[in-house]
Amino acid sequence: MESGSRDVIPAQAFRATVQYDGTAYYGFQRQRSGFPSVQDELEQALASLTGHWVRVIGAGRTDSGVHALGQVIGFKIRWPAAHGFMALMRAMNSRLPKDIAVVELAEATEDFHPRYDAKRRTYEYRILCSQTRQPLLRHLAWQIATKLDIEPMNAAAAHLVGSQDFATFGRAPVGDNTVREVYRAEWRAEGEMLVFQICANAFLNRMVRSVVGSLKKVGEGKWTAGQLATALAARDRKQSATAAPAHGLYLLSVEY
Amino acid sequence: MESGSRDVIPAQAFRATVQYDGTAYYGFQRQRSGFPSVQDELEQALASLTGHWVRVIGAGRTDSGVHALGQVIGFKIRWPAAHGFMALMRAMNSRLPKDIAVVELAEATEDFHPRYDAKRRTYEYRILCSQTRQPLLRHLAWQIATKLDIEPMNAAAAHLVGSQDFATFGRAPVGDNTVREVYRAEWRAEGEMLVFQICANAFLNRMVRSVVGSLKKVGEGKWTAGQLATALAARDRKQSATAAPAHGLYLLSVEY
Repeated sequence: MESGSRDVIPAQAFRATVQYDGTAYYGFQRQRSGFPSVQDELEQALASLTGHWVRVIGAGRTDSGVHALGQVIGFKIRWPAAHGFMALMRAMNSRLPKDIAVVELAEATEDFHPRYDAKRRTYEYRILCSQTRQPLLRHLAWQIATKLDIEPMNAAAAHLVGSQDFATFGRAPVGDNTVREVYRAEWRAEGEMLVFQICANAFLNRMVRSVVGSLKKVGEGKWTAGQLATALAARDRKQSATAAPAHGLYLLSVEY
Repeated sequence: MESGSRDVIPAQAFRATVQYDGTAYYGFQRQRSGFPSVQDELEQALASLTGHWVRVIGAGRTDSGVHALGQVIGFKIRWPAAHGFMALMRAMNSRLPKDIAVVELAEATEDFHPRYDAKRRTYEYRILCSQTRQPLLRHLAWQIATKLDIEPMNAAAAHLVGSQDFATFGRAPVGDNTVREVYRAEWRAEGEMLVFQICANAFLNRMVRSVVGSLKKVGEGKWTAGQLATALAARDRKQSATAAPAHGLYLLSVEY
Protein backbone atom coordinates (compact mmCIF):
# COMPACT_ATOMS: atom_id res chain seq x y z
CA MET A 1 0.00 0.00 0.00
CA GLU A 2 2.76 2.35 1.08
CA SER A 3 4.87 1.72 -2.03
CA GLY A 4 1.73 1.80 -4.20
CA SER A 5 0.82 5.26 -2.91
CA ARG A 6 4.35 6.55 -3.63
CA ASP A 7 4.16 5.37 -7.21
CA VAL A 8 1.20 7.62 -8.02
CA ILE A 9 3.38 10.75 -7.57
CA PRO A 10 5.26 11.21 -10.86
CA ALA A 11 8.82 12.58 -10.82
CA GLN A 12 8.71 16.34 -11.26
CA ALA A 13 11.45 18.47 -12.83
CA PHE A 14 12.75 21.35 -10.72
CA ARG A 15 14.95 24.33 -11.42
CA ALA A 16 16.80 25.98 -8.53
CA THR A 17 19.16 28.92 -8.06
CA VAL A 18 22.15 28.09 -5.89
CA GLN A 19 24.73 30.27 -4.12
CA TYR A 20 28.03 28.94 -2.85
CA ASP A 21 31.39 29.89 -1.44
CA GLY A 22 33.66 27.85 -3.72
CA THR A 23 36.69 28.01 -1.39
CA ALA A 24 36.32 24.46 -0.06
CA TYR A 25 35.32 22.79 -3.36
CA TYR A 26 37.06 21.37 -6.39
CA GLY A 27 34.57 23.20 -8.57
CA PHE A 28 30.91 22.57 -9.29
CA GLN A 29 31.28 19.30 -11.14
CA ARG A 30 31.69 15.91 -9.49
CA GLN A 31 35.33 14.80 -9.19
CA ARG A 32 36.84 11.56 -8.08
CA SER A 33 36.35 10.51 -4.46
CA GLY A 34 38.09 12.70 -1.87
CA PHE A 35 37.72 15.87 -3.95
CA PRO A 36 34.51 17.52 -2.76
CA SER A 37 32.37 19.25 -5.37
CA VAL A 38 29.24 21.38 -5.13
CA GLN A 39 27.36 18.87 -7.31
CA ASP A 40 28.24 16.09 -4.83
CA GLU A 41 26.87 18.09 -1.92
CA LEU A 42 23.63 18.87 -3.76
CA GLU A 43 23.19 15.23 -4.80
CA GLN A 44 23.88 14.05 -1.25
CA ALA A 45 21.29 16.49 0.13
CA LEU A 46 18.68 15.19 -2.33
CA ALA A 47 19.64 11.57 -1.63
CA SER A 48 19.19 12.16 2.09
CA LEU A 49 15.82 13.75 1.36
CA THR A 50 14.45 11.14 -1.08
CA GLY A 51 16.24 7.97 -0.01
CA HIS A 52 17.77 7.41 -3.45
CA TRP A 53 20.40 8.98 -5.68
CA VAL A 54 19.23 12.00 -7.71
CA ARG A 55 21.26 13.48 -10.54
CA VAL A 56 21.90 17.22 -10.40
CA ILE A 57 22.90 19.16 -13.54
CA GLY A 58 24.40 22.66 -13.33
CA ALA A 59 24.30 25.50 -15.86
CA GLY A 60 27.99 26.34 -15.44
CA ARG A 61 30.96 24.12 -14.56
CA THR A 62 32.65 26.59 -12.25
CA ASP A 63 36.33 25.79 -11.50
CA SER A 64 37.89 24.94 -8.17
CA GLY A 65 37.57 27.94 -5.80
CA VAL A 66 35.11 29.88 -8.00
CA HIS A 67 31.97 31.22 -6.25
CA ALA A 68 28.36 31.46 -7.38
CA LEU A 69 25.60 33.89 -6.55
CA GLY A 70 23.28 32.56 -9.26
CA GLN A 71 24.24 29.07 -10.40
CA VAL A 72 21.19 27.29 -11.85
CA ILE A 73 20.62 23.57 -11.36
CA GLY A 74 18.04 21.07 -12.54
CA PHE A 75 16.92 17.78 -10.99
CA LYS A 76 13.91 15.45 -10.90
CA ILE A 77 12.29 14.09 -7.76
CA ARG A 78 8.91 12.97 -6.54
CA TRP A 79 7.64 15.76 -4.34
CA PRO A 80 3.96 15.97 -3.41
CA ALA A 81 2.73 19.36 -4.68
CA ALA A 82 0.74 19.74 -1.43
CA HIS A 83 4.03 20.00 0.51
CA GLY A 84 4.92 23.18 -1.38
CA PHE A 85 8.17 24.32 -2.97
CA MET A 86 9.28 26.45 -0.02
CA ALA A 87 9.25 23.28 2.09
CA LEU A 88 11.43 21.53 -0.52
CA MET A 89 13.86 24.45 -0.52
CA ARG A 90 14.01 24.46 3.27
CA ALA A 91 14.49 20.67 3.37
CA MET A 92 17.40 20.93 0.91
CA ASN A 93 19.00 23.84 2.80
CA SER A 94 18.80 22.00 6.12
CA ARG A 95 20.78 19.15 4.50
CA LEU A 96 23.39 21.30 2.74
CA PRO A 97 26.66 22.52 4.30
CA LYS A 98 26.76 26.18 5.36
CA ASP A 99 28.76 27.24 2.30
CA ILE A 100 26.01 26.19 -0.16
CA ALA A 101 22.41 27.43 -0.24
CA VAL A 102 19.38 27.07 -2.50
CA VAL A 103 17.89 30.57 -2.79
CA GLU A 104 15.14 30.04 -5.39
CA LEU A 105 13.22 27.00 -6.54
CA ALA A 106 10.47 26.44 -9.12
CA GLU A 107 8.89 23.70 -11.19
CA ALA A 108 10.50 23.17 -14.60
CA THR A 109 9.31 21.54 -17.78
CA GLU A 110 10.08 17.84 -18.16
CA ASP A 111 12.84 18.50 -20.73
CA PHE A 112 14.52 21.45 -18.94
CA HIS A 113 18.33 21.30 -19.19
CA PRO A 114 20.19 23.99 -17.20
CA ARG A 115 23.24 24.00 -19.48
CA TYR A 116 21.80 23.44 -22.99
CA ASP A 117 18.80 25.72 -22.45
CA ALA A 118 20.78 28.67 -21.03
CA LYS A 119 20.71 31.74 -23.32
CA ARG A 120 23.10 34.03 -21.43
CA ARG A 121 25.49 33.74 -18.53
CA THR A 122 26.96 36.61 -16.52
CA TYR A 123 30.18 36.33 -14.54
CA GLU A 124 31.66 38.90 -12.18
CA TYR A 125 35.33 39.29 -11.26
CA ARG A 126 36.56 41.35 -8.31
CA ILE A 127 40.04 42.85 -8.00
CA LEU A 128 40.93 44.70 -4.80
CA CYS A 129 43.71 47.25 -5.40
CA SER A 130 45.16 47.87 -1.96
CA GLN A 131 48.62 48.41 -0.53
CA THR A 132 47.67 46.18 2.39
CA ARG A 133 46.04 42.76 2.50
CA GLN A 134 42.43 42.72 3.70
CA PRO A 135 41.98 39.41 5.56
CA LEU A 136 38.17 39.51 5.56
CA LEU A 137 38.14 39.64 1.75
CA ARG A 138 40.90 37.08 1.17
CA HIS A 139 38.59 34.48 -0.43
CA LEU A 140 36.33 37.05 -2.10
CA ALA A 141 38.60 39.14 -4.34
CA TRP A 142 41.98 39.05 -6.07
CA GLN A 143 44.09 41.40 -3.95
CA ILE A 144 46.89 43.21 -5.73
CA ALA A 145 49.16 46.00 -4.46
CA THR A 146 49.29 47.96 -7.73
CA LYS A 147 46.77 50.58 -8.87
CA LEU A 148 44.96 49.78 -12.11
CA ASP A 149 43.74 52.39 -14.59
CA ILE A 150 40.11 51.51 -15.32
CA GLU A 151 39.69 53.63 -18.48
CA PRO A 152 42.04 51.69 -20.79
CA MET A 153 40.71 48.47 -19.22
CA ASN A 154 37.22 49.42 -20.41
CA ALA A 155 38.55 50.46 -23.83
CA ALA A 156 40.19 47.01 -24.12
CA ALA A 157 37.09 45.22 -22.79
CA ALA A 158 35.03 46.83 -25.59
CA HIS A 159 37.06 44.74 -28.09
CA LEU A 160 35.61 41.58 -26.54
CA VAL A 161 32.00 42.44 -27.38
CA GLY A 162 30.49 40.62 -30.35
CA SER A 163 30.48 37.15 -31.85
CA GLN A 164 34.15 36.20 -32.09
CA ASP A 165 36.62 33.35 -31.88
CA PHE A 166 37.95 33.43 -28.30
CA ALA A 167 40.56 30.65 -28.75
CA THR A 168 43.20 32.97 -27.21
CA PHE A 169 41.32 33.00 -23.92
CA GLY A 170 40.15 29.43 -23.43
CA ARG A 171 39.55 25.90 -24.59
CA ALA A 172 36.25 24.57 -25.95
CA PRO A 173 34.71 21.27 -24.84
CA VAL A 174 35.44 18.33 -27.17
CA GLY A 175 33.43 18.62 -30.40
CA ASP A 176 32.69 22.35 -29.99
CA ASN A 177 34.27 25.40 -31.60
CA THR A 178 35.75 28.44 -29.81
CA VAL A 179 33.31 31.08 -31.11
CA ARG A 180 31.25 32.80 -28.42
CA GLU A 181 29.08 35.91 -28.42
CA VAL A 182 29.90 38.47 -25.72
CA TYR A 183 27.03 40.93 -25.10
CA ARG A 184 28.62 43.10 -22.44
CA ALA A 185 32.05 43.45 -20.80
CA GLU A 186 32.56 46.33 -18.39
CA TRP A 187 34.54 47.44 -15.34
CA ARG A 188 33.28 49.70 -12.59
CA ALA A 189 35.07 50.98 -9.48
CA GLU A 190 33.64 50.65 -5.96
CA GLY A 191 36.29 52.40 -3.90
CA GLU A 192 39.44 50.23 -4.06
CA MET A 193 37.44 47.36 -5.57
CA LEU A 194 37.33 46.99 -9.35
CA VAL A 195 34.34 44.95 -10.47
CA PHE A 196 34.17 43.38 -13.94
CA GLN A 197 30.97 41.97 -15.41
CA ILE A 198 30.93 39.96 -18.59
CA CYS A 199 27.80 38.55 -20.19
CA ALA A 200 27.87 36.05 -23.09
CA ASN A 201 25.83 33.27 -24.63
CA ALA A 202 28.41 30.84 -23.21
CA PHE A 203 32.04 30.79 -22.09
CA LEU A 204 35.09 28.70 -22.93
CA ASN A 205 36.99 26.91 -20.19
CA ARG A 206 39.06 29.50 -18.22
CA MET A 207 37.81 32.30 -20.49
CA VAL A 208 36.80 34.89 -17.85
CA ARG A 209 39.97 34.42 -15.80
CA SER A 210 42.20 34.65 -18.92
CA VAL A 211 40.37 37.78 -20.07
CA VAL A 212 40.72 39.36 -16.59
CA GLY A 213 44.43 38.48 -16.40
CA SER A 214 44.91 40.17 -19.79
CA LEU A 215 42.81 43.24 -18.90
CA LYS A 216 44.86 43.62 -15.72
CA LYS A 217 47.95 43.98 -17.92
CA VAL A 218 46.16 46.82 -19.71
CA GLY A 219 45.27 48.43 -16.35
CA GLU A 220 48.93 48.26 -15.31
CA GLY A 221 50.00 49.98 -18.55
CA LYS A 222 51.91 46.87 -19.69
CA TRP A 223 49.54 46.29 -22.63
CA THR A 224 47.56 48.79 -24.71
CA ALA A 225 43.92 48.14 -25.58
CA GLY A 226 45.16 47.53 -29.14
CA GLN A 227 47.54 44.80 -27.92
CA LEU A 228 44.61 43.01 -26.31
CA ALA A 229 42.72 43.22 -29.62
CA THR A 230 45.77 41.76 -31.39
CA ALA A 231 46.04 38.93 -28.85
CA LEU A 232 42.34 38.14 -29.38
CA ALA A 233 42.70 38.18 -33.18
CA ALA A 234 45.66 35.76 -32.96
CA ARG A 235 43.33 32.94 -31.78
CA ASP A 236 46.34 31.49 -29.96
CA ARG A 237 46.13 30.39 -26.31
CA LYS A 238 49.75 31.47 -25.79
CA GLN A 239 48.84 35.12 -26.51
CA SER A 240 46.75 35.36 -23.32
CA ALA A 241 48.23 36.77 -20.14
CA THR A 242 48.28 34.48 -17.09
CA ALA A 243 44.75 33.73 -15.91
CA ALA A 244 43.53 35.60 -12.84
CA PRO A 245 43.07 33.41 -9.72
CA ALA A 246 39.78 31.57 -9.12
CA HIS A 247 38.80 33.20 -5.84
CA GLY A 248 37.88 36.58 -7.42
CA LEU A 249 35.35 34.98 -9.81
CA TYR A 250 31.57 34.65 -9.32
CA LEU A 251 28.92 33.04 -11.53
CA LEU A 252 26.38 35.83 -11.15
CA SER A 253 23.35 34.73 -13.16
CA VAL A 254 22.06 32.48 -15.93
CA GLU A 255 19.22 33.54 -18.22
CA TYR A 256 16.87 31.26 -20.16
CA MET B 1 81.66 42.77 17.65
CA GLU B 2 78.40 41.56 16.11
CA SER B 3 76.57 41.50 19.44
CA GLY B 4 78.14 44.82 20.37
CA SER B 5 76.74 46.49 17.26
CA ARG B 6 73.26 45.07 17.97
CA ASP B 7 73.28 46.51 21.47
CA VAL B 8 73.56 50.08 20.20
CA ILE B 9 70.03 49.88 18.70
CA PRO B 10 67.64 50.51 21.60
CA ALA B 11 64.27 48.77 21.70
CA GLN B 12 61.69 50.99 20.05
CA ALA B 13 57.97 51.04 20.85
CA PHE B 14 55.61 50.53 17.92
CA ARG B 15 51.89 50.94 17.45
CA ALA B 16 50.17 49.01 14.67
CA THR B 17 46.65 48.67 13.29
CA VAL B 18 45.65 45.08 12.65
CA GLN B 19 42.78 43.51 10.68
CA TYR B 20 41.69 39.93 11.12
CA ASP B 21 39.03 37.40 10.26
CA GLY B 22 38.30 36.01 13.73
CA THR B 23 36.63 32.81 12.46
CA ALA B 24 39.61 30.54 13.16
CA TYR B 25 40.67 32.09 16.49
CA TYR B 26 39.69 31.79 20.13
CA GLY B 27 39.68 35.56 20.38
CA PHE B 28 42.48 38.09 20.42
CA GLN B 29 44.00 37.14 23.74
CA ARG B 30 46.42 34.26 24.27
CA GLN B 31 44.70 31.06 25.47
CA ARG B 32 46.11 27.80 26.63
CA SER B 33 48.02 25.68 24.12
CA GLY B 34 45.93 24.24 21.26
CA PHE B 35 43.55 27.23 21.19
CA PRO B 36 44.95 29.63 18.59
CA SER B 37 44.64 33.35 19.30
CA VAL B 38 45.43 36.43 17.25
CA GLN B 39 47.93 37.57 19.90
CA ASP B 40 49.77 34.24 19.55
CA GLU B 41 50.06 34.66 15.79
CA LEU B 42 51.36 38.22 16.12
CA GLU B 43 53.89 37.21 18.78
CA GLN B 44 55.04 34.26 16.67
CA ALA B 45 55.52 36.54 13.65
CA LEU B 46 57.63 38.95 15.73
CA ALA B 47 59.59 36.06 17.29
CA SER B 48 60.37 34.71 13.83
CA LEU B 49 61.49 38.20 12.78
CA THR B 50 63.62 39.07 15.84
CA GLY B 51 64.77 35.67 17.04
CA HIS B 52 63.30 36.17 20.50
CA TRP B 53 59.86 36.36 22.13
CA VAL B 54 58.17 39.76 21.92
CA ARG B 55 55.08 40.64 23.94
CA VAL B 56 52.12 42.04 22.00
CA ILE B 57 49.38 44.02 23.79
CA GLY B 58 46.00 44.69 22.12
CA ALA B 59 43.54 47.54 22.67
CA GLY B 60 40.51 45.24 22.76
CA ARG B 61 40.16 41.63 23.91
CA THR B 62 37.85 40.52 21.13
CA ASP B 63 36.01 37.24 21.81
CA SER B 64 36.28 33.99 19.89
CA GLY B 65 35.02 34.49 16.31
CA VAL B 66 34.91 38.32 16.50
CA HIS B 67 36.60 40.21 13.63
CA ALA B 68 38.67 43.37 13.57
CA LEU B 69 39.14 46.06 10.95
CA GLY B 70 41.02 48.37 13.32
CA GLN B 71 42.46 46.53 16.33
CA VAL B 72 45.45 48.45 17.71
CA ILE B 73 48.49 46.68 19.14
CA GLY B 74 51.69 47.76 20.81
CA PHE B 75 55.07 46.01 21.01
CA LYS B 76 58.76 46.82 21.44
CA ILE B 77 61.55 45.56 19.22
CA ARG B 78 64.97 46.65 18.01
CA TRP B 79 64.46 47.79 14.44
CA PRO B 80 67.09 49.91 12.70
CA ALA B 81 65.37 53.16 11.64
CA ALA B 82 67.24 52.97 8.34
CA HIS B 83 65.23 49.85 7.40
CA GLY B 84 62.02 51.88 7.47
CA PHE B 85 58.63 51.09 8.95
CA MET B 86 57.11 49.88 5.68
CA ALA B 87 59.77 47.15 5.62
CA LEU B 88 58.82 46.14 9.20
CA MET B 89 55.14 46.00 8.23
CA ARG B 90 55.93 43.90 5.16
CA ALA B 91 58.19 41.60 7.19
CA MET B 92 55.40 41.05 9.74
CA ASN B 93 52.77 40.46 7.05
CA SER B 94 54.94 37.91 5.27
CA ARG B 95 55.11 35.95 8.56
CA LEU B 96 51.41 36.21 9.47
CA PRO B 97 48.69 33.81 8.32
CA LYS B 98 46.37 35.05 5.56
CA ASP B 99 43.54 35.84 7.98
CA ILE B 100 45.59 38.47 9.89
CA ALA B 101 47.25 41.59 8.45
CA VAL B 102 49.06 44.65 9.76
CA VAL B 103 47.65 47.60 7.81
CA GLU B 104 49.32 50.56 9.56
CA LEU B 105 52.44 50.92 11.65
CA ALA B 106 54.12 53.85 13.39
CA GLU B 107 56.60 54.62 16.15
CA ALA B 108 55.03 55.06 19.58
CA THR B 109 56.21 56.71 22.77
CA GLU B 110 58.11 54.50 25.21
CA ASP B 111 55.12 54.30 27.61
CA PHE B 112 52.38 53.71 25.00
CA HIS B 113 49.78 51.18 26.18
CA PRO B 114 47.12 50.24 23.57
CA ARG B 115 44.46 49.40 26.17
CA TYR B 116 45.02 51.93 28.98
CA ASP B 117 45.68 54.84 26.61
CA ALA B 118 42.64 54.27 24.39
CA LYS B 119 40.06 57.10 24.62
CA ARG B 120 37.29 55.66 22.44
CA ARG B 121 36.50 52.36 20.80
CA THR B 122 34.01 51.77 18.00
CA TYR B 123 32.42 48.41 17.29
CA GLU B 124 30.21 47.47 14.36
CA TYR B 125 27.60 44.71 14.27
CA ARG B 126 26.04 43.37 11.06
CA ILE B 127 22.67 41.62 10.84
CA LEU B 128 21.55 40.29 7.46
CA CYS B 129 17.76 40.02 7.27
CA SER B 130 17.12 37.55 4.48
CA GLN B 131 14.68 34.73 3.83
CA THR B 132 17.56 32.70 2.38
CA ARG B 133 21.04 31.99 3.72
CA GLN B 134 23.86 33.78 1.92
CA PRO B 135 26.85 31.40 2.03
CA LEU B 136 29.45 34.04 1.09
CA LEU B 137 28.48 36.13 4.12
CA ARG B 138 28.16 33.24 6.59
CA HIS B 139 31.15 34.32 8.72
CA LEU B 140 30.59 38.05 8.20
CA ALA B 141 27.05 38.77 9.46
CA TRP B 142 24.34 37.34 11.73
CA GLN B 143 21.79 36.00 9.24
CA ILE B 144 18.19 35.97 10.41
CA ALA B 145 15.02 35.19 8.45
CA THR B 146 12.83 37.83 10.10
CA LYS B 147 12.55 41.48 9.06
CA LEU B 148 13.58 44.01 11.72
CA ASP B 149 12.07 47.48 12.07
CA ILE B 150 15.01 49.88 12.28
CA GLU B 151 13.12 52.91 13.66
CA PRO B 152 12.26 51.54 17.11
CA MET B 153 15.75 49.97 17.21
CA ASN B 154 17.24 53.44 16.86
CA ALA B 155 14.81 54.87 19.42
CA ALA B 156 15.94 52.15 21.85
CA ALA B 157 19.64 52.63 20.97
CA ALA B 158 19.32 56.31 21.93
CA HIS B 159 18.73 55.19 25.55
CA LEU B 160 22.25 53.75 25.60
CA VAL B 161 23.99 57.07 24.98
CA GLY B 162 25.58 58.74 28.02
CA SER B 163 27.59 57.74 31.07
CA GLN B 164 25.61 54.90 32.63
CA ASP B 165 25.88 51.65 34.53
CA PHE B 166 25.74 48.89 31.89
CA ALA B 167 25.70 45.94 34.34
CA THR B 168 22.65 44.53 32.49
CA PHE B 169 24.70 44.07 29.34
CA GLY B 170 28.06 42.80 30.54
CA ARG B 171 30.61 42.00 33.21
CA ALA B 172 33.48 44.27 34.24
CA PRO B 173 37.05 43.07 34.67
CA VAL B 174 38.01 42.29 38.31
CA GLY B 175 38.45 45.51 40.32
CA ASP B 176 36.53 47.69 37.84
CA ASN B 177 32.96 49.03 37.93
CA THR B 178 30.30 48.63 35.23
CA VAL B 179 29.90 52.32 34.32
CA ARG B 180 30.82 53.19 30.74
CA GLU B 181 30.20 56.24 28.58
CA VAL B 182 28.53 55.59 25.22
CA TYR B 183 29.01 58.46 22.75
CA ARG B 184 27.04 57.10 19.81
CA ALA B 185 24.81 54.07 19.09
CA GLU B 186 23.06 53.94 15.74
CA TRP B 187 21.65 51.58 13.14
CA ARG B 188 21.63 52.13 9.40
CA ALA B 189 20.27 49.95 6.59
CA GLU B 190 22.33 48.89 3.56
CA GLY B 191 19.77 46.91 1.57
CA GLU B 192 19.01 43.74 3.58
CA MET B 193 21.99 44.42 5.88
CA LEU B 194 21.42 46.29 9.13
CA VAL B 195 24.63 47.87 10.41
CA PHE B 196 25.00 49.00 14.03
CA GLN B 197 27.84 51.22 15.22
CA ILE B 198 28.49 51.90 18.87
CA CYS B 199 31.25 54.14 20.18
CA ALA B 200 32.19 54.34 23.87
CA ASN B 201 35.15 55.11 26.12
CA ALA B 202 35.33 51.36 26.85
CA PHE B 203 33.10 48.29 26.82
CA LEU B 204 32.20 45.58 29.31
CA ASN B 205 32.73 41.94 28.46
CA ARG B 206 29.99 40.83 26.00
CA MET B 207 28.43 44.31 26.07
CA VAL B 208 28.00 44.92 22.33
CA ARG B 209 26.60 41.45 21.63
CA SER B 210 24.16 41.70 24.58
CA VAL B 211 23.03 45.15 23.44
CA VAL B 212 22.54 43.89 19.87
CA GLY B 213 20.60 40.82 21.05
CA SER B 214 18.33 43.15 23.04
CA LEU B 215 17.92 45.68 20.20
CA LYS B 216 16.97 42.81 17.89
CA LYS B 217 14.04 42.07 20.24
CA VAL B 218 12.95 45.68 19.77
CA GLY B 219 13.27 45.32 15.97
CA GLU B 220 11.09 42.21 16.07
CA GLY B 221 8.43 44.08 18.06
CA LYS B 222 8.91 41.80 21.10
CA TRP B 223 10.28 44.66 23.24
CA THR B 224 9.48 48.37 23.14
CA ALA B 225 12.25 50.97 23.34
CA GLY B 226 10.95 51.68 26.85
CA GLN B 227 11.42 48.05 27.87
CA LEU B 228 15.06 48.25 26.80
CA ALA B 229 15.46 51.39 28.95
CA THR B 230 13.91 49.49 31.88
CA ALA B 231 16.24 46.52 31.36
CA LEU B 232 19.23 48.92 31.34
CA ALA B 233 18.04 50.68 34.51
CA ALA B 234 17.69 47.32 36.30
CA ARG B 235 21.50 46.81 36.26
CA ASP B 236 20.81 43.09 36.26
CA ARG B 237 22.57 40.75 33.81
CA LYS B 238 19.43 38.57 33.69
CA GLN B 239 17.44 41.43 32.12
CA SER B 240 19.49 41.30 28.89
CA ALA B 241 18.23 39.36 25.90
CA THR B 242 20.45 36.53 24.63
CA ALA B 243 23.72 37.92 23.23
CA ALA B 244 24.03 38.10 19.44
CA PRO B 245 26.56 35.63 17.93
CA ALA B 246 30.23 36.60 17.63
CA HIS B 247 30.60 36.38 13.85
CA GLY B 248 28.58 39.58 13.16
CA LEU B 249 30.86 41.71 15.35
CA TYR B 250 33.82 43.85 14.24
CA LEU B 251 36.24 45.99 16.27
CA LEU B 252 36.19 48.94 13.88
CA SER B 253 38.59 51.49 15.38
CA VAL B 254 40.34 52.67 18.52
CA GLU B 255 41.06 56.35 19.16
CA TYR B 256 43.81 57.81 21.38
